[in-house]
Amino acid sequence: MSSDSSPATHWVLTLSCPDRPGIVHAVAGLLAEHGGNITESQQFGDPLSGLFFMRVQVTASTPRDELEAAIGPVARRFEMDWSLDVVGRPVRTLVMGSTAAHCLNDLAFRQRSENLPIELVAVVSNHTALAPLAEFYDIPFHHVPVTSATKAQAEARLLELVEELDVELVVLARYMQILSDDLCRALAGRVINIHHSFLPSFKGARPYAQAHDRGVKLIGATAHYVTGDLDEGPIIEQDVERVDHSRHVEDLVALGQDVERRALARAVRWHAEHRVLLDGHRTIVFR
Amino acid sequence: MSSDSSPATHWVLTLSCPDRPGIVHAVAGLLAEHGGNITESQQFGDPLSGLFFMRVQVTASTPRDELEAAIGPVARRFEMDWSLDVVGRPVRTLVMGSTAAHCLNDLAFRQRSENLPIELVAVVSNHTALAPLAEFYDIPFHHVPVTSATKAQAEARLLELVEELDVELVVLARYMQILSDDLCRALAGRVINIHHSFLPSFKGARPYAQAHDRGVKLIGATAHYVTGDLDEGPIIEQDVERVDHSRHVEDLVALGQDVERRALARAVRWHAEHRVLLDGHRTIVFR
Amino acid sequence: MSSDSSPATHWVLTLSCPDRPGIVHAVAGLLAEHGGNITESQQFGDPLSGLFFMRVQVTASTPRDELEAAIGPVARRFEMDWSLDVVGRPVRTLVMGSTAAHCLNDLAFRQRSENLPIELVAVVSNHTALAPLAEFYDIPFHHVPVTSATKAQAEARLLELVEELDVELVVLARYMQILSDDLCRALAGRVINIHHSFLPSFKGARPYAQAHDRGVKLIGATAHYVTGDLDEGPIIEQDVERVDHSRHVEDLVALGQDVERRALARAVRWHAEHRVLLDGHRTIVFR
Amino acid sequence: MSSDSSPATHWVLTLSCPDRPGIVHAVAGLLAEHGGNITESQQFGDPLSGLFFMRVQVTASTPRDELEAAIGPVARRFEMDWSLDVVGRPVRTLVMGSTAAHCLNDLAFRQRSENLPIELVAVVSNHTALAPLAEFYDIPFHHVPVTSATKAQAEARLLELVEELDVELVVLARYMQILSDDLCRALAGRVINIHHSFLPSFKGARPYAQAHDRGVKLIGATAHYVTGDLDEGPIIEQDVERVDHSRHVEDLVALGQDVERRALARAVRWHAEHRVLLDGHRTIVFR
Repeated sequence: MSSDSSPATHWVLTLSCPDRPGIVHAVAGLLAEHGGNITESQQFGDPLSGLFFMRVQVTASTPRDELEAAIGPVARRFEMDWSLDVVGRPVRTLVMGSTAAHCLNDLAFRQRSENLPIELVAVVSNHTALAPLAEFYDIPFHHVPVTSATKAQAEARLLELVEELDVELVVLARYMQILSDDLCRALAGRVINIHHSFLPSFKGARPYAQAHDRGVKLIGATAHYVTGDLDEGPIIEQDVERVDHSRHVEDLVALGQDVERRALARAVRWHAEHRVLLDGHRTIVFR
Repeated sequence: MSSDSSPATHWVLTLSCPDRPGIVHAVAGLLAEHGGNITESQQFGDPLSGLFFMRVQVTASTPRDELEAAIGPVARRFEMDWSLDVVGRPVRTLVMGSTAAHCLNDLAFRQRSENLPIELVAVVSNHTALAPLAEFYDIPFHHVPVTSATKAQAEARLLELVEELDVELVVLARYMQILSDDLCRALAGRVINIHHSFLPSFKGARPYAQAHDRGVKLIGATAHYVTGDLDEGPIIEQDVERVDHSRHVEDLVALGQDVERRALARAVRWHAEHRVLLDGHRTIVFR
Repeated sequence: MSSDSSPATHWVLTLSCPDRPGIVHAVAGLLAEHGGNITESQQFGDPLSGLFFMRVQVTASTPRDELEAAIGPVARRFEMDWSLDVVGRPVRTLVMGSTAAHCLNDLAFRQRSENLPIELVAVVSNHTALAPLAEFYDIPFHHVPVTSATKAQAEARLLELVEELDVELVVLARYMQILSDDLCRALAGRVINIHHSFLPSFKGARPYAQAHDRGVKLIGATAHYVTGDLDEGPIIEQDVERVDHSRHVEDLVALGQDVERRALARAVRWHAEHRVLLDGHRTIVFR
Repeated sequence: MSSDSSPATHWVLTLSCPDRPGIVHAVAGLLAEHGGNITESQQFGDPLSGLFFMRVQVTASTPRDELEAAIGPVARRFEMDWSLDVVGRPVRTLVMGSTAAHCLNDLAFRQRSENLPIELVAVVSNHTALAPLAEFYDIPFHHVPVTSATKAQAEARLLELVEELDVELVVLARYMQILSDDLCRALAGRVINIHHSFLPSFKGARPYAQAHDRGVKLIGATAHYVTGDLDEGPIIEQDVERVDHSRHVEDLVALGQDVERRALARAVRWHAEHRVLLDGHRTIVFR
């Protein structure tokens, strides 16, 4: 029950469940009973998967435990996956990188200047090149070298850090190591990767050189959740930049970095704002 | 009450009202009572205007009169403006043009090939250049010449056609006559105009020549509802195209036509799908 | 030698040759000797292929044979491939299509209204759906059905038409038949195709359904010259459109058509304006 | 005369002059005489202003004084404005800012990681907020407070710094002070400013609030040379970002910063690469 004496909190509730009549009514009802005022709400029913998705922001002065207790029965009745958070609470984020700084620089700058709702609790790298940048932004830097002999050990160290630091989101910001399937499964839904994308796509080494050789007119980037199949997880965001014949390979790389950091920043923001819901191997993004 | 024997209809309900708790619950409740299954729903509360906006698509086998009767009390309770339609019903549309064919050609082609949900019931023009195109698409063509002496008469003829043909939407597809304030008021919310837009904007004649002279790098177009103040009504859609120094004025005009038809086609689609709601002099577009 | 009494012609000269010092000087010299005034010129030396490319527009009152005679020795000296044309001369173009009309409609409309410098001399189709549109634009329509038994015969008919009608450019405007390697070779550099492109790319049937299923956020199109390997010829232009989870497969198809016609129209324009030069399996586009 | 014993230098020559036959031939001739090999070249003749513009990159082992001595007579003959530089030489750049860090951060990061050919020799600010960022990138920071009483003194200090530090380019990176006409004239062609742009444009205070209130669907930015008329100098680059009704004013500001830094970074790159030539109050950009 809402209490006029408590200050109102701005909540965000996300849920998914099998689609059937009455879901919105039930959710809106329990929120109304607690004096909640809906400020933003989006729903989507996927006719193919038969699933229903909802994200609702609501102001209410109900304490968290009361609100959760009220959601419980409705969630059980409709077999919902759901999560409740406070709008704007910074998501505890660990960034993994190798030597390229563009993505880390972009996330850290946006976090500081644009209220990107993340807290950067650690930078983990198999190199030391990113240490000064991490230091400038007051982010603890962890150097975790990786060789084929020490890969398991390095991943164990990462998992340790994730646990110690209560990490909610891991961002692979051009981290040039492939995560093991076990690690991907352990962190499923909590790891976002960014990679370049081309039309057509190129297999093998030096994709920018291949793209240049093929004379592509667009270069792109895809931000996605990591699954066992590294570049094939659910897509969160994609973007492209226009190029022409006069661009050298290194120009393509530089432009590619621009697209990468842009697509990654959007994906991280939407994830941190609880705007991304999983629908099998695709995403629902309530922007 | 829903009846299993009737085939389900796909309804779209749009509404706006002063924002306060319980609106979504009430709407979802009345839909649930009639066996409605929500397939798509979006809400938005504007903190500045204090208004709440909702668009909901719902499948239900309830007849229209029953549904309207059920909506009535809720609408009165929350002081709603609301409208109910069948998803995909073609909106009866009259296109006004002068000599430029690009917008009419685009709308007519999309209507035929892409299920743009409009029915083109008339083309009205102060010239005859568009007659063959109208004929090709089987749209009755009305030549209504306009001089300063006959302007009032021409507008009266337009209003007559709007009435006779049950026109729901008038599209000014590069119609090079300024509508009187009276006509704008008479058709308020039912007329969409398209005009070019530049950064910076240019007053006076030959805007493309001015834009060329000024070396703009982008040319744009704005689709908006018409109010008395011709180019200043609520904006529905905007788009731009990149240009460079090597483009002649006529190139800018041609590229401008591309942007115009693209922005106009989107605005008409969103209007016809009841995705555009008015919030004072701005629009809410539930895409 | 230029003659003041002749009216000046606006010429476009394109050339490619092994890169070495003195090319621009030699070309500019021969043009200057004939009183030519360069209005637009672009060069590009590809460090990878070692080839040099040039496109120059020049006004001169020299007759064609004199100009060609002057170019000859320079071209031989530098081992040039070259071509000379009059700026804006309509390129004789044959469009092949099946049932989808969006590309043909777009090209025909632009040809008429925007001075796209092509002349549409024939529409060839294995269906009859495009006949009325061709008729509206006064383009002779040729119905050439294709079955596996008659494919060779149909291609022979196409080649006949190409010859009879002096066709310079064949546009595959969503022509849903695969051309034989022989035909591709016979028309090398003179056939432009348009196809959809996705990130990632999808093999096999129903690509839009696959893209929808995979939740892509961008859909694209690629216009390219046809070589034996159908979708792998030199890329002329690419473009994308943004989509989200709420789009149905048919929406993706409709948006895809928009991107297709846009990319194709640009590719055809640049080809017809002699702005596209081949550099191995990539293109140089002097926009 | 070129000497085989000297290593080749990669030169960039830019020029403008009244348009007439023979310019390209003369320039290519003098370059060829010195063993120059043209790697990239672009020309443009503006039919409206009657001016001809050329940018040519050439490798040659000729010393600078010899090359300049060879250019001199040709330049005099054609009344050319011209400039010669080494490709990729960092342009000595001074950044002026107030409190917003996004543009400085972007330029400094690109300078370090992407070979943006500038050297950041000073950050000048009327506030101290940018000092730590300048320090991180090892750029000397100069705090020059400005009040109405000290404005002339502050501008004198700026001019002193420009002279002492051999500054070639001043970038107004959201510097929230209006430069005096005298200063603008003193630095004409050497100052690039970035400002937000909207369709329609808004006069007066709080433009983002006005844009929000008006429901614009695009927000943009314009990078331009500064003339006496602050926001009206020759445009170098423009870009836009899409927004919708759900964005708050602060979201528009954040997105606006993204567009601003993107447009500014391109403008600075093109200027530093000598790709921007002035054609009256418009620019020729040889990208």
